[in-house]
Order: sequence, then structure tokens, then C-alpha cells
Amino acid sequence: MSESLLAATISALGLPDEKAMAAARDRQEQLTKPSGALGRLEALSIQLAGISGRLQTPTSPCAVIICAADHGITAEGVSAFPSAVTAQMVLNFLAGGAAANVLARQMGASVTVLDVGVDADLPSHPNLIEHKIRRGTANFAVEAAMQAEEVLAAIEVGIRTANQVIADGARIVIPGEMGIGNTTPSAAIAAVLTGQAVEMVTGTGTGLAFAGWRHKCEVIRKALALHKPSSTDPIDLLRCVGGLEIAAITGIVLAGAAARVPILLDGVIATAGASIAARLAPLCIPFLVSGHHSQEPGHRAFLEHLGMLPLLDLDLRLGEGTGALLALPLLQASVRTLNEMATFDEAAVEKGIED
Amino acid sequence: MSESLLAATISALGLPDEKAMAAARDRQEQLTKPSGALGRLEALSIQLAGISGRLQTPTSPCAVIICAADHGITAEGVSAFPSAVTAQMVLNFLAGGAAANVLARQMGASVTVLDVGVDADLPSHPNLIEHKIRRGTANFAVEAAMQAEEVLAAIEVGIRTANQVIADGARIVIPGEMGIGNTTPSAAIAAVLTGQAVEMVTGTGTGLAFAGWRHKCEVIRKALALHKPSSTDPIDLLRCVGGLEIAAITGIVLAGAAARVPILLDGVIATAGASIAARLAPLCIPFLVSGHHSQEPGHRAFLEHLGMLPLLDLDLRLGEGTGALLALPLLQASVRTLNEMATFDEAAVEKGIED
Repeated sequence: MSESLLAATISALGLPDEKAMAAARDRQEQLTKPSGALGRLEALSIQLAGISGRLQTPTSPCAVIICAADHGITAEGVSAFPSAVTAQMVLNFLAGGAAANVLARQMGASVTVLDVGVDADLPSHPNLIEHKIRRGTANFAVEAAMQAEEVLAAIEVGIRTANQVIADGARIVIPGEMGIGNTTPSAAIAAVLTGQAVEMVTGTGTGLAFAGWRHKCEVIRKALALHKPSSTDPIDLLRCVGGLEIAAITGIVLAGAAARVPILLDGVIATAGASIAARLAPLCIPFLVSGHHSQEPGHRAFLEHLGMLPLLDLDLRLGEGTGALLALPLLQASVRTLNEMATFDEAAVEKGIED
Repeated sequence: MSESLLAATISALGLPDEKAMAAARDRQEQLTKPSGALGRLEALSIQLAGISGRLQTPTSPCAVIICAADHGITAEGVSAFPSAVTAQMVLNFLAGGAAANVLARQMGASVTVLDVGVDADLPSHPNLIEHKIRRGTANFAVEAAMQAEEVLAAIEVGIRTANQVIADGARIVIPGEMGIGNTTPSAAIAAVLTGQAVEMVTGTGTGLAFAGWRHKCEVIRKALALHKPSSTDPIDLLRCVGGLEIAAITGIVLAGAAARVPILLDGVIATAGASIAARLAPLCIPFLVSGHHSQEPGHRAFLEHLGMLPLLDLDLRLGEGTGALLALPLLQASVRTLNEMATFDEAAVEKGIED
């Protein structure tokens, strides 16, 4: 059943709407500004038209789905924060006190927490979706992070949740995340998918010092030597060294792309999930927008691999969806300028002539 | 009288509030996130606290003042658009059809056009402030762009206008601009103030081809050889090769800084005006935020000279205030996260320990 929902979602993927993109490109040339003067906003407006099939791509409501899970690999001492903080931060999200909540309020976005594997009993709450696949992954330094069926179940939970928020009206989806330890599986995935050396894609996460970073690299190298995951089998890669929230993000990305709803990506964890999705089904790539460039080095590797250029670069390394939320006004600005600016004809402004 | 208003404004400049900055820095360490994880938003929140003297720096209402003027240097064929477009675009601003209008509506900012030197009769309009100093500058390829008294009058108009919008409630001011030909005086000012070669600070403006760019560089080089302006006399520099809207922006920057209201800078023209202000009174610099990095090469020279790092880099080269408007949500986000996020204590989240 899991595999068939995944397969059905992948089958539903389509190409961007070339006609809408051509219409957007054409209109950009008619607007009262020098050709190309809105820079990346112009390209973004054309991409969004390709996603939605029209010039007025809806850019609200925006739904942030914070996928939360724990990581057995924290037993190896790879994080500056204890695992208990995952559940504590989930409560902080539900109380509205985290950075993602503050930015979501500012941007008019909703925040839903999706528990796919937090190692704690959480209280029921209207903004919490409970789909615990297991209470955190196993320690992948000694065994596979999870079973293949668990990977598929977590992806499926992501698909179902994205389908639900889209059915409820969301027109932009931001997959966020919370999971103490999750830059470690992300770095392992980056090393395998991009072929870069572990040291090049491993960062300091929430704040390791140099010795901790060196140890984290060593843990990842040993785990990759133990499991020998293949870059061509992304489900098996998640099984060996993945995370439950990363698998859920993969599902969200595929479901959003299948529904032709733009997926606004945050940092290294979200982009790890998107990279798995892109390996499963490259047709999802044109439906992704990279919100920001994180300080985590694995993020750059993923972005280069996907051929994506992030909109913002503000030295963030917080996750949760914060960098994506900060980029949301840029998506809205690109659509609004495309649609609301006067044309040269309408405003009786002369066009320039290149000399 | 002009000189005394300018002198009084400069005398009113003060230092950032160190106590408020320390309080902001301290609070950033208590918020539920890894230390430093909000990157440049943290530094921005601290800077804004220094400007306003409190943690809750007001970030609205925001007023865009589009300073408009014409340029005699266009007689040399330095622009891809005809001079008549300055007035046509003013009408477009008043009708709400330009990019700056669209973005101001999105961001909840007001747009006022300040005519300091448009070479056309403009209709009266509630959003148009009429203070024409002269109908465009003289062609500085053959004579000084204006008289020293006109420079001071234009700066004074900027000061008065900024004081007025601040008295009317503005808590962020964006000096925008419109003036066909104005990347030419900006490049000349950049060459003189930063000491860089004309070719390094001259761009293609609204869309020159290579031959046009080469000619523009030659016009600027000859003008600088003719007038020999000194980098240490910014009023005289404006007199020789400046623009009326650039002088008005200088006044807006000084008045905003004196009123301890953050000035959010757009691209090369706004930063030319700010660089003149900084040369007149370096104390204004801490009150400036660079919204974005323009594609015009002179902008980078100014920013390096001022020691400023822009928030956005989206390949824009439109002016009007558009790049600054796009950055406004980032200022608001920095203040909101500083003030609205829960602390570790409030949320009962454990702090990390660097290993």
C-alpha cells in the first residue's frame, strides 16, 4: 500500500507549463522597467507560472509542516544538544515560541508539527499530527537506521500530510524539521548522493567545536563503510543512514510537486529530503524553490547537485523552516510585480533602445 | 539658511545606544535556538536596537521617498532610455503602476515622490512633493552639474522631507530615486570617493550595450579630468558631477540618522547619496542598512567603502527603492524574532553544550 501511494504520486508528476512560462516571460518584457531589471524575481515569476499554469500563481496560504523525529546516532555524541530537546522544541512550536512560529506569524503562514518519530509521548494538540513510525531511528553507527518498510511509511505520511494541507487550501508548502542529530544523516546522505568527501559536507550542526566536528565526520565515514549504501537506491540510503523526518520531507516534496504547488525549501535537512525525492523522481525538481543558503556545508553540495540557487544567504543555520519562511515574501513579490505592474503601453512610458 | 539646517542636522547625530545593543545581544543568547543560528538577523536586531535605543525597534510605518530629477549628462548619450521617461515614470509612480508601488503595497509602505529637479511640469498630486531646484542638472561633460547653492538646497529639501515623513509617523525611511541618466553621476562619484578606476564602477544602467558602456566610461573620465573634484569636499563633488536627487538622498540619510530612524538603502544611486552623507558626517553610517546588492558595479565599490554588507543579492538593477523594499521583511523579522521568541527558561528547553 505504501509503495503504491508513492508510485501513484510519482506517476502524477508532470512537466512545468511551457505556455504559462512563455506568457510570463513575454509579460516581463512589457512591464515598466528595463528588461531584466528585476533580476531573479523575473525568473522566479516565470518558474512559478510554470508550476501553477498561470501568471497569477497563488502564494498564500502557506503551510509549514515541521517534520519531527529523533535519531539514534546521537548516542555517538554527534550533537551539541541532547535528544530530549526534540520533544521540548515540539512543545515550543505548539506554544508558538520558536523562531518558525514568529516568522510564520509575520508571513501569515500556518505551522503544523508532524511527529513521524519523536522519542517521547506528546500531548494531543490541534497543530500536532501524530504519525509516529517508531520512536527515533536506530544508531546507524552499529545498525541500519530503520527498516525499508519504515522508510516507505514515513514517506507516505509525508505525502498524506502534504495532500491534506493542500486539500485544506495551502498553495505554498514549506517542509520544516526538528530532530536533534539530523545534520548527521543529512551529511551522510550528501556524501553518498553528491559523491563529495564527508569532511566537505559535514558541518557543526547546532554548535560543535572542532573536536566534535572531527568526531562527527569519523562516525559518518565509519557508518558509510559499514552499510555501503548506493547512490542509486535512495530508499535503501534512507534505510541505512536516513532519518524519519527526512523521509517525510521526501514525501511532502513529491506530493507538492504532483499537486503543482510550489515547495519552498529551507536548509540542509529539507534539501536532503528533496534530493532523495529528486533521485526517486527528477520531475519534481522544477517545482522546488530554494529559500536560502544555510551555513551547513552539506547544503551547498545538495544545491549544486540539484542545480538550484537559493534566494537568500543570511548565514542562518537554524532549520525548522525559518530560512524558507524568510524567502516567502520574495515569491509573493515576484508574482505581484508580474501581475500588478503597469505595462509600457498602459503607463505611456517610452521603451529604451539598446545602443 | 541651507547650510545651517545641514549643520544643525549633522550636529544632531549621535552614537548608537550601546546599552540597548548589549541587551539585544544578551537576549539573543537566551532565545530557543543554537547561539548564532539566526545569522545576520541577529546582528541586524542588535544594530536596530542601537539605532532606536530599545529592543522593540519600530519597523513600520515605512516611507519610501522617491527622489526624482533629470540629468543634463544624458545629452552625451549615456542612457538607453530617453530623459522624458523620468517624468513619465513619476506619473507611473503617482498612478501606482511601477515596481516600487507594487512592492510598497505588498510591504505596507507608503510611496511619496519628491520632485527636486524633473525637467517637466508635473500635475499636483497628494503623493507628489514639489521642490524643483532646477529643471535637471547641466551637462557635466561641459560645465558643472549645478551651483553649490543648488546642492545645498537639494540636500535641505531631502532633510525637510525626511523630517516631515518622520513627523508624520514613519519609523523606517527608504530613499528611492528616479532619474534617467543617474547611474552616470553615481559612477563618477564612486570613482572619486572610492578611488577605483572608472571602468570598475561604471555599469550598463538601464541597458547599454558594450559600445554604449565604453562611451559612458569615456564621458565620465573626461568629466573628472575637466572638473578635478576632490574626494574630501563632497558638496563640491556634487556640484561638479552630482545629481539633484542624489543630493536630496544625502539629506534624507542625514535627517533619518539624526532622528534615529533606520535608513534602508536601495542600490547604487541611494548608496551614492549615502556615501556623500557619510563623507560629510561618518556618524550617520551606523544608522544605515543596505537592503540589497545591485548589479551596478559602482554599488559594490560604495558598499566596500562604507563597510556595509547588503542583505539581499537578487541581481536587481531597477532602483526606485525596490531592492530596499524587498529587504524590509528581514528588518521586521529580526526585530520580531528578538522580541517574540521564547527563551530557554520560558519554554523549558535545555541549552546545548559545546563539546
